[in-house]
Amino acid sequence: MPSKSIIPKTVNPDLQRERDGASFSSEEFAIWWAGCAEKLKFNRGVREYMYKDFDYDEYTQVFYMSYEDICEFAVKSSINVAKKLRQLQSERNPGGNEYWPTLFEEPEMWGLHLAGNPFHVMFMVVLRALKTQCTPEQYEEFGARVERFEVTATYAQTELGHSSHLRGLETRADFDRATDEFVLNTPTISSYKWWPGGLGHCSNYAMVMAQLYIDDQLKGLHLFYVQVREEDTHEPRPGIHIGELSKKIGFLGVNNGFLGMKNVRIPRSRMLMRHAQVQRDGSYVKSPVDALTYFSMLATRCIVARNTTLSLATAATIATRFSAVRRQSPIDPRLPEPQIIDHVTQQLKVFPEIATSLALRLAYDYLWDLFNVTSSDIDQGNYERLAELHALSCALKVMSSNDSAAGIERLRLACGGLGYLAASNLGNLYANTVAACTYEGENTVLLLQVSRFLLKSWRAAEGGAPLAPTASYLAGMQQNADFKVWTGSWADMVNAMQLAAANKTSLALRSLCNRMDKGESEKVAASHTGIQLTQAAEFHARAFVCHNFLTEVTGPKSKTRTSALNRVLEQLLELYLVNGTLKHMSDILRVASLTDVHLGQLQARLEAALTKLRPDVVAIVDGFDFGDEQLNSILGFFDGNVLERVFDAALKSPMNRKPVPKSFHEHLGPFMKSNI
Amino acid sequence: MPSKSIIPKTVNPDLQRERDGASFSSEEFAIWWAGCAEKLKFNRGVREYMYKDFDYDEYTQVFYMSYEDICEFAVKSSINVAKKLRQLQSERNPGGNEYWPTLFEEPEMWGLHLAGNPFHVMFMVVLRALKTQCTPEQYEEFGARVERFEVTATYAQTELGHSSHLRGLETRADFDRATDEFVLNTPTISSYKWWPGGLGHCSNYAMVMAQLYIDDQLKGLHLFYVQVREEDTHEPRPGIHIGELSKKIGFLGVNNGFLGMKNVRIPRSRMLMRHAQVQRDGSYVKSPVDALTYFSMLATRCIVARNTTLSLATAATIATRFSAVRRQSPIDPRLPEPQIIDHVTQQLKVFPEIATSLALRLAYDYLWDLFNVTSSDIDQGNYERLAELHALSCALKVMSSNDSAAGIERLRLACGGLGYLAASNLGNLYANTVAACTYEGENTVLLLQVSRFLLKSWRAAEGGAPLAPTASYLAGMQQNADFKVWTGSWADMVNAMQLAAANKTSLALRSLCNRMDKGESEKVAASHTGIQLTQAAEFHARAFVCHNFLTEVTGPKSKTRTSALNRVLEQLLELYLVNGTLKHMSDILRVASLTDVHLGQLQARLEAALTKLRPDVVAIVDGFDFGDEQLNSILGFFDGNVLERVFDAALKSPMNRKPVPKSFHEHLGPFMKSNI
Repeated sequence: MPSKSIIPKTVNPDLQRERDGASFSSEEFAIWWAGCAEKLKFNRGVREYMYKDFDYDEYTQVFYMSYEDICEFAVKSSINVAKKLRQLQSERNPGGNEYWPTLFEEPEMWGLHLAGNPFHVMFMVVLRALKTQCTPEQYEEFGARVERFEVTATYAQTELGHSSHLRGLETRADFDRATDEFVLNTPTISSYKWWPGGLGHCSNYAMVMAQLYIDDQLKGLHLFYVQVREEDTHEPRPGIHIGELSKKIGFLGVNNGFLGMKNVRIPRSRMLMRHAQVQRDGSYVKSPVDALTYFSMLATRCIVARNTTLSLATAATIATRFSAVRRQSPIDPRLPEPQIIDHVTQQLKVFPEIATSLALRLAYDYLWDLFNVTSSDIDQGNYERLAELHALSCALKVMSSNDSAAGIERLRLACGGLGYLAASNLGNLYANTVAACTYEGENTVLLLQVSRFLLKSWRAAEGGAPLAPTASYLAGMQQNADFKVWTGSWADMVNAMQLAAANKTSLALRSLCNRMDKGESEKVAASHTGIQLTQAAEFHARAFVCHNFLTEVTGPKSKTRTSALNRVLEQLLELYLVNGTLKHMSDILRVASLTDVHLGQLQARLEAALTKLRPDVVAIVDGFDFGDEQLNSILGFFDGNVLERVFDAALKSPMNRKPVPKSFHEHLGPFMKSNI
Repeated sequence: MPSKSIIPKTVNPDLQRERDGASFSSEEFAIWWAGCAEKLKFNRGVREYMYKDFDYDEYTQVFYMSYEDICEFAVKSSINVAKKLRQLQSERNPGGNEYWPTLFEEPEMWGLHLAGNPFHVMFMVVLRALKTQCTPEQYEEFGARVERFEVTATYAQTELGHSSHLRGLETRADFDRATDEFVLNTPTISSYKWWPGGLGHCSNYAMVMAQLYIDDQLKGLHLFYVQVREEDTHEPRPGIHIGELSKKIGFLGVNNGFLGMKNVRIPRSRMLMRHAQVQRDGSYVKSPVDALTYFSMLATRCIVARNTTLSLATAATIATRFSAVRRQSPIDPRLPEPQIIDHVTQQLKVFPEIATSLALRLAYDYLWDLFNVTSSDIDQGNYERLAELHALSCALKVMSSNDSAAGIERLRLACGGLGYLAASNLGNLYANTVAACTYEGENTVLLLQVSRFLLKSWRAAEGGAPLAPTASYLAGMQQNADFKVWTGSWADMVNAMQLAAANKTSLALRSLCNRMDKGESEKVAASHTGIQLTQAAEFHARAFVCHNFLTEVTGPKSKTRTSALNRVLEQLLELYLVNGTLKHMSDILRVASLTDVHLGQLQARLEAALTKLRPDVVAIVDGFDFGDEQLNSILGFFDGNVLERVFDAALKSPMNRKPVPKSFHEHLGPFMKSNI
């Protein structure tokens, strides 16, 4: 019977031939994708260090475990990552932070956080939020301890009955002047805090969003720093009801938790008072800028846009390599079964997701630059670009999570039955990515926020006011709503997408006004126009991504790349634009006159784009430079030994350790015998 | 702290109000949906019997178990279902079969097969296949024992390296004239049998598809009945390498298995010889009709179309009830948060899936009638409608699995974060449904088969030959390819979908011919035209479903229903057609001239259809008549006590049994202390 040695030490010749035949240097692609050669070298060095003693066999067994054991594995493995990163930091640059804590949750570590990272929220949200919400003294007391990992904290905002509508939150904090304390309560089941990552079993502190009451007068939402477990024993504190939510579809080890509070008393100094204050006598000082309370959520949304995109690139790597080594279904019956990557139907399932990975990644780069510029502006008291940043972060979070999740699932299905195996990791990637459609602002809710920015911009343009750069196309469209002659150029396709977005915005606005003319208030009318408004917002996001992709590929930056690399990027751009134009043709036809001949040409260009990319796709996904441990997929190893690894994974199923399972002796055997 | 009693004994008033306000009788709907009053009563009686001692707490704990325990649970629970159904049969109608084995795998039982049914393939495929492939004597020996559940058998066709392309199968059976035996071998890893349900640990026999060789001469694929495990000890037989595949995304307890054979000898009498024979002297008698080998797979495809559709209806029930009791995000800020079902964006996520459930279900009814007629025809030696049945079964299997899987996932996302909880059961429903996009014929492969039927029909029509009823629209389109004036009627919309399908077929055929003109063989050209061909096939399926939905709702059968029920069905039809027309507008615009005004009207009709259905949706999904145990979702109980059940499920997580988890003592605690 085959043993472990069934996995060859060599690269699958089909895959090697793909690499040898590529028209460009996948190393140059990797440098471009990483940002620069130093960054690529840094990433590879980190991976080498972190995965040097990676135990594949341990990791392949994780999802066979009971839920409790998976949860424990997640805590253990996350703490191991923390330990190793701190070790690495102290070895390479003591006192710096480029390894620890910066990399704790970065994609380079994903292979080590297989069941999710229970301390994700602590490093992604809590530290940022403490920095922006604490006074300096408070940060010294609360934040510094979190930074040192002496305590563990999470961010508790959503309640069982309340999520998108923050003002509906029920948790209350009453100021008790007599004792100089706040008294926290979750008076109903629906007011229980629900979802915070790590709250279930790993946090001893929580930033709690609650309605502040002074003398029974509501002062609105504020953050309170509440100790929920004893530091030494980890027992829940008096009045605290804490636990985890029950099993989820993904992120099994994150112990998302609930929190109920009954007359939980905390000192007044535990309200986070950087912006608003309650003084000893109960007098209240209002925050100068409300929006700042939510700025840390904006940063998180940007990261979500990036992470979902990288998950798509991960899945695209797996499915592309699989498609290059899997052989199935003759094209020419006289020849052997071809690599499935030679079937045009397979190409259409896989290649567009590679292009989408690039389009979304480049959009994120723009977003992150805008975030940094706006953050500096805010530090200078300038809030001018905040609205645009908010809208773009929402738009790209929605589009990245939607398109990446859908793309990963298409890629999984493109791997046929073997994609259904847990060890393909595609199911796990999907479950984790699709969650992002809901968390950090449910996607429909975010689209409605984007649409408010669009309507505002549209009206500003009508009044001749200047528009934010990412909305400036709306002004042009108002002035010249007719499309010029369709030439089929990339600029035409981007233009058509922008015109469609503008048209959707204009139609939605007209519906909104009609409803208001009939007596509905603006808010009610906007709610009733929700379908059109969300569609307009989606097109706005898509138009931005297309426009930015075009600029990045054909703009001045192309001069920094070899012509071989530029040619590949242009082919990916061509595929992305042609495929997107065809997919959204019904809306494009409302703003541009394409004839049947044009449509036939686009269909032919789609097929031609696939054919042109065919020889280069393996080298492109190699250029994403994911390590085997990050991909963690029996279908996606660099060496392409797929069937052998599928076989090997089956042999390692714990159910195959014994030739006859317990269920035969206890259930099946007696039942069959009773039938004879 | 809340205990079990947190779940009210009463119906959520929001849900009760919906039921009280419905415009029609959900009981009449239920009778119509079940087929007749007797069938509805029968279903309910079965459920009452089968679930009377259902242990919710046991079932809620299943997915917390280790994989091994889940696998054992699946065997145990499936055998319990078998025992109870046989008991029921003997109580109500001894000697009949309407309960056992007919109901073993039916939707009524789904709640009891939570982790999948390892004997699904045995009753769904093997028994049918044995009946059609065995001689009467063979059936007496093999089939009767399977019927009595004295032995367990599975169907082993797909190999690790070969699935869609059957002729590529490598497993071989060599006839040994000296001993009057066949010698079976799987000479490579890629020839291992892969995927059969129940093969891993539950089967002691397998129908094995293998290449027959006599004197080293290939005679093509034949079925062999191979004993793989000892009947008494369940140990694998000599030369048999057997096990299960490793964990999957869903169907965790089904133990899909692998099978390797090394010089496994079976008597000549174990080749299934109804159609082809090998005689004692090694002479070979060919089967008169090759296609019959695959007829049992056709039946299975029909069942898949039905089951995926019912899974969608299940998910629609859950999401609709959830949407009626969940309150979130004010529409009018002066009013309390509304039921989310009042948000138009939510309506657009949920209501179309209800309509799709009906459309696909009615299409299945047509398919099943055609299957029965064709089966009788075949018994009479008449194969005339076989090609049409094959094409329709492929088309509807593809569309039902695709649209149902996508719909279930949309519905899950419509339940927000709570849809991400395993106890919502929506993730499990999705995982099981999406698998059907791959098994029993991968969907792209099946669409290519449908396209061959379309091309053949198209050419026949050009030659003036009669067409099969489900393709007859192609002839009409050829004669009159121009669309008449768009009136927006339902007939117009069906007509437009048919015209779009015909146009896609015609364009694909043109591309195919162009490629052949350039020297490609027809097979190669067809492969290169795969994108257009699969699109044509998809439109053909969609046009059929729309046409059939229209006929069922507005045709003669409407006279058997009350006008109140007909009005609701018409509203669902309106939503389905308008939504489908808008979604496929880019292809419809190529065959029909709709103006911007028409498009605006359709958008308004979409919103109006949602509004009209709003008061009736809860009563409609009540009419699907799923029991709480079948839905198995904390979000979908008939009583609508959602938040309480979500809370209750959290309390029951095994991680919440102890206040402090082991991971604190072993990992987190020591690490935090080391940092102080």
